[in-house]
Order: sequence, then structure tokens, then C-alpha cells
Amino acid sequence: MSADRANSAATEDLKASEVETPSSKLVRFSADEALELDSGVRLGPWQIAYETYGELNADKTNAVVVCHALTGDQYAASTNPVTGKPGWWSLMVGPGRPIDTNHYFVICANVLGGCLGTTGPATLNPLTGAPYGLDLPVVTIRDMVRAQARLLDHLEIETLFAVIGGSMGGMQVLQWAVNYPERVFAAVPIAAAARHTSQNIAFHEVGRQAIMADPDWRAGNYIQEGVRPTKGLAIARMAAHVTYMSDESLHQKFGRNLQDRDHLTFGFDADFQIESYLRHQGMTFVDRFDANSYLYVTRAMDYFDLAQEFGGSLPNAFKDTRTRFCVMSFTSDWLFPTSESRQVVKALNAAAANVSFVEIESDRGHDSFLLDVPEMFQTISGFITGAARARGLPAPGEEVEPRS
Amino acid sequence: MSADRANSAATEDLKASEVETPSSKLVRFSADEALELDSGVRLGPWQIAYETYGELNADKTNAVVVCHALTGDQYAASTNPVTGKPGWWSLMVGPGRPIDTNHYFVICANVLGGCLGTTGPATLNPLTGAPYGLDLPVVTIRDMVRAQARLLDHLEIETLFAVIGGSMGGMQVLQWAVNYPERVFAAVPIAAAARHTSQNIAFHEVGRQAIMADPDWRAGNYIQEGVRPTKGLAIARMAAHVTYMSDESLHQKFGRNLQDRDHLTFGFDADFQIESYLRHQGMTFVDRFDANSYLYVTRAMDYFDLAQEFGGSLPNAFKDTRTRFCVMSFTSDWLFPTSESRQVVKALNAAAANVSFVEIESDRGHDSFLLDVPEMFQTISGFITGAARARGLPAPGEEVEPRS
Repeated sequence: MSADRANSAATEDLKASEVETPSSKLVRFSADEALELDSGVRLGPWQIAYETYGELNADKTNAVVVCHALTGDQYAASTNPVTGKPGWWSLMVGPGRPIDTNHYFVICANVLGGCLGTTGPATLNPLTGAPYGLDLPVVTIRDMVRAQARLLDHLEIETLFAVIGGSMGGMQVLQWAVNYPERVFAAVPIAAAARHTSQNIAFHEVGRQAIMADPDWRAGNYIQEGVRPTKGLAIARMAAHVTYMSDESLHQKFGRNLQDRDHLTFGFDADFQIESYLRHQGMTFVDRFDANSYLYVTRAMDYFDLAQEFGGSLPNAFKDTRTRFCVMSFTSDWLFPTSESRQVVKALNAAAANVSFVEIESDRGHDSFLLDVPEMFQTISGFITGAARARGLPAPGEEVEPRS
Repeated sequence: MSADRANSAATEDLKASEVETPSSKLVRFSADEALELDSGVRLGPWQIAYETYGELNADKTNAVVVCHALTGDQYAASTNPVTGKPGWWSLMVGPGRPIDTNHYFVICANVLGGCLGTTGPATLNPLTGAPYGLDLPVVTIRDMVRAQARLLDHLEIETLFAVIGGSMGGMQVLQWAVNYPERVFAAVPIAAAARHTSQNIAFHEVGRQAIMADPDWRAGNYIQEGVRPTKGLAIARMAAHVTYMSDESLHQKFGRNLQDRDHLTFGFDADFQIESYLRHQGMTFVDRFDANSYLYVTRAMDYFDLAQEFGGSLPNAFKDTRTRFCVMSFTSDWLFPTSESRQVVKALNAAAANVSFVEIESDRGHDSFLLDVPEMFQTISGFITGAARARGLPAPGEEVEPRS
């Protein structure tokens, strides 16, 4: 990576330039290097923030893109500078981890529409000098992937050894495989689906309405007006958080346990531990996430329908793919249930793709992909090792074994 | 029913008196006739609003109490005066219906804490002259049933042929059977559970937080201040409504169908039919329900744990019961899943109770109990006919056959 580094904020007239902020690497694209969005809008200037782990090999064949979920970020395996907490996928990505950074060069970018450096609704609109707010065009999962592909172009990485992610990250993995089949050697969509269901859209809509009902949302212009719709955003988070856990995991973790007391208070404070847990989830979320970004990123998920541009045929989306897939779901995930993953597998099989499918036993619901679920790590290790051999890359414990 | 009728609002000094309002029958109890609540508070004066269908027989042995759900009301089989819509259980209750009002005297009362005539947070607090708001003591399912039992005392009905209801109505049915075993001949808890689960509490907490986050909630004093937390209440309703339907029913009814258009709008208006449906559900709900009542009634459900007063033993709760039970659940109900009903059945069996259990095939989720589900009607008809024979009551198409 020999790109110029610059700290100037006035980049409209510059070619794509790389900037290392105190927290993230950042590439800025000029207005001339606009991103063509699904909405038809040309977005430019724009920027993408990302983290990398490990080293790119000389052939540039060991790059792995990790795609983050709705409220995730680029800090997959490094400390999040906002929360001070370890990366959200530290168990998966790192030296000796299933995605072993001793072997692979891992790139994780903040999604388009996000709020940790990549262009999103809080970014200044060059036309007005004020934050975009709702003037940012609505973006799609495909737009997020387009932005990542542009980042790879900039980094002069032609092909990816693997793309991997869970939930909305898994949607991006599928989109990558469908729109850039020649660039993706292996794909691991976890706890994902080929389209967002009606129930999923419904839960998202509740969250968006909660944000937009907050008087401090100010039609999306809260930054300019010096306020923040924290209550609405917290409620959106609470509603979503319930859907990320299983009934069983809630029962095991909280049951009907009372909060710091051995009796009911006959009031509306948090009597039950699950209540104070949810309130805590809501309150801490607003410290690290932007309300308008929540609107944009949930909207992108709702719009996701992989088959749509292929006449509604999912097998057609994967036609002639040479990517090898490992599709994973979790038994207790009711938000992205196994049946949705099976639809993807069915379509891949219909397209005669190289696919393995694993439904992992876990009682921890949709969030299992973020948790310490050994069977998931073993499965991904195994799949990546096999794919590395096929790609002629050294797998952990092996010497380089060139592709025959 | 020979009780005095009065229209006076100043009833503190009167004995329990019956009032027929333009919409509902109402019984007012004086401060001397206070209701002893689980919280330890003596609530009085208080009142209970109810509807009746059919005629009480001379022996007073044909009374059926129908218990309504969270957002239900006493208008089970008659036009709701607020919405102008038919009663919420018109398919179940009426002449020739499974609960046949040609044979049974049906009583349906608005629950304690409700907002359609029974004492609730919008009722005037006699101490202040202003609506109770949060000064109303928190009430429980048991308190609701206590209030109904007091109504029956007033109506001089000693025993009930049957108690029947779905969801929170089913909780009341179980509570009736447990606390008044000698008064309940037959009990039909539908789509219910012996306790509210952690997940259920979580969804309710989201709704309550949405209401309390609305600046127009005014710490519960919105009536005095001339406003209403309609946005918060609408969001609470939207969040809850998603849980009342199954993934399958949402898929069948809405799928990813777009609203009045053949393309995405790339905006935050309702693109998908499910979004406009939910918004409509939220908006119409606020016209018929009180936000503080929503807090109180959800809290009552959260507090529900039938085994608690029996040392945590559900079989003990049903010890020596002579009530005959018909427990029903629906295959696609994920809010009150069949497993919860099975716990009740297991406990009833452990208590050597007379119980039949039917899991009804339905893809319409928790709300199935309100819908046209023929197998449910057939099951209830069959159970009630059998129970009527055992009770010596004439069943539809039969002459009186006195109990031997």
C-alpha cells in the first residue's frame, strides 16, 4: 500500500487518497470517483474507513474481507475506540484464530451508511456543509459491497481468498459472490438469508418509527440542532435486541429473576433482570451509534433481495459461479432461521455450485455468530483450511503448496 | 339481576350499585367494599364494567365468564362503541356459536387496570379528583380475577359453568381455576401459559419504554395536561403486533409486496405493505386504548406466575381441583408456544385433574384465538357440549338432562 497519505479535509479535488486517522484507515474518493448507487444517484465525494489485520502476501492472494452486521463496525479484531472494548469478532479473527492473521490479510470496512468513518448520514454534505441527514441517498447492500470493491481496487487487490460475515454481513457475502463472482474464491455467509422477510422488515420498521417519533430526531437534522434522539434509538435497539436472542437463552440467562430484590415492587421500575438488561443495552448503544445510520442500514437490509435482479430466480443469481460456499445457520436463530439458509443452499445446488451447509446447534439465537460457539469456529477453520489448500495457500501448520 | 340502578357519579357513600351506561353495564363498589389487591393496597371505591349475552337460567348454573386479552374489552359479542366494530369474539360467542348464547349466560368484564369503564389509571382518584395515572396501584392477573369474582358475588352467581379466554384471558382462566376451584366447573385457557416468560417480559418492556419515552406521556399525567402519548403508544402496539403474528402469516399476507407501487422509493416512507399495515395498526390502536392502561395491563401479565404462591409448584396450584380443563395452543404461536401449554397440562395431570389438551394446526400465530380457525371452534363446541352434559345443562339440540 503505497498510496499517498493526507490529513486535509478538503479532498473534493484530490484523487482517492488514503488517510490514517487516529483510529482507522480511510480512503477518500473525489467527486470524479463517485459511487454509482442502486438509487441512480452518483455519490461523490465519498469515503470508506477500514481496518486491516495481518499482511498481504506478494501475490495478493491471501486477502479476506470480513463484513460486519447492522450495528457492527470495522473493528473486527482491534479495540473499538468509541467503546474501548475488544473487536466484535476477536474470537474469529487474529493470530491462531479460525481466520488466522498469521496467514491471511483481513480487511474490514465500515459499511456505507454507517457512522464510524465511511460516508453516512452524519457525514458533511459537500453541497451544504451540513451533515447529510436524510439527504443522503438510501443505500443498499449492493451499494455497500460496491464501496468495498472500490476500496479493493484502490488497494490493488484483484481477488479475495474469502469473504465472510454474519447477519447483514452474510448478506454482503452473498452479494459479493453474486456481483463479483470472479473476485471471490470462497464465501461464508452465516446466519443470513437471500432476502429480508416480512417479519424482519416489520421489526426494523418498529425501530425506525421509534427513532422518528423522538422529538429530538428533528426530521433527521438533530446534529445541526445540537440534540440527539437517544430515547428513540434506545427503544429501537431494545426491540431489535430481543430478536437477536432466543427464548431459551433469555430463559437461561434471566428467567423471571428479579433485579436486586427478592420481591416484586408493584411499580414500573425494572423489576426483572431482563428489563434492566434491555434498558442497559439501549442506553449503551446510543453512545456508539448514530440514529440516522440506524435508519439507513436497516433500510438497506429491508431492501435486500438477492434474486430480484435475476428475474426473481435465486439459482440464476449464482449461475456459473466458481466460488466455493460454506453456508451456516444456528438452530435457535428465529430471525434468520435455518430455512432461509436452506433456500440459499438449494439455489446454490441448483446452480451446481460447490457448497457445504452446516446448521450449528446453539441455543443462543441469532447472536450466536458473535459468541463463543466452538462448533462454528471448528467449521470455519476446517472450511478455510480446505479452501486454502485448493487455492494453493499455506494453511495453519503447513508450508506453501502451490496450486497445481 | 334486581340491583338498584343509579346514574350518580358520587357513589363513594353508596353500596355497590349497578349502572347501565349507554355502552356497558357498570357496578360501583364503595370505599367500604374495597378490593384487596396483591400489592397490599385496598382499592376503593372501584367499579367494573361488563357486558352480558344470553339469559341466566333459574338455577344460575349456566353462567360463562369470558376473559379478554391485553387490548381486548368487554364487547366480546356486541359492537364496540369506540370503534363501531363487531365484538372481538363474535365468531365464538352468540346464538348458535360455540359459546351458544341461546344456552349460556355469558359475562365479559373489562379488566381491572383497563380503560373501558372498569377502574384503571384514567379513572378519577377520589383523593385528588384527578385521574389516577401512576398513583393507581399496580394490579395483577389475580386482582383482575378478584374483581370479576366480586362482580359475580354482586350478581349473586355462585358458580360458573365455564371460564374461557385466550392469551391474557387464558391467564385469568387459570387464575380463576386455581383461586376459586369450587366456583369453576370447566376452564378453557387458550394460547396461554402458567407464567410470563423472559422473552414476553422483554417485548412488553420495549412497549412500556416507548410509551414512557414519549414527551407527551408527562410522567403519566397526560390527561390533566391535555395531551396524549400517541406516538409512544403506537410504537408499543406495532412492536407487540409483530409478535402476535407468525413469520409464515406475515409472509403469506405481505411477503415483500410493495405498497401501491411497482418499485422501491429509496426513502423512508412505507415502501412495503407490512410497513403501512403496522403503521395503521399503531395509529388506530391509539384511538381505542389508553397509554397508562397499556402499562398496567402489560405489567399484570409480566407479574403472572401461577405457581408462585404455591411454593413454585404448579401441580400444587391445581391440587384437588375438580374443574375440567380444555387446554389449547396453536402450532405457529411463538409468543405463547405449545411448550408453555404443555407445562400446564403436565401439572394438571400431576394433580390428577380432568384435562384434555389440543394443539391446533394454524399458521396464523398467537392471534389465532381471535380468528376464524374452524378446528378451534369445533374443539370448544365439543368440550362445552360434553361439559354441559356432565353439568346437567342442555347442550345445543338437547333437552334438559338433569344431573344424576
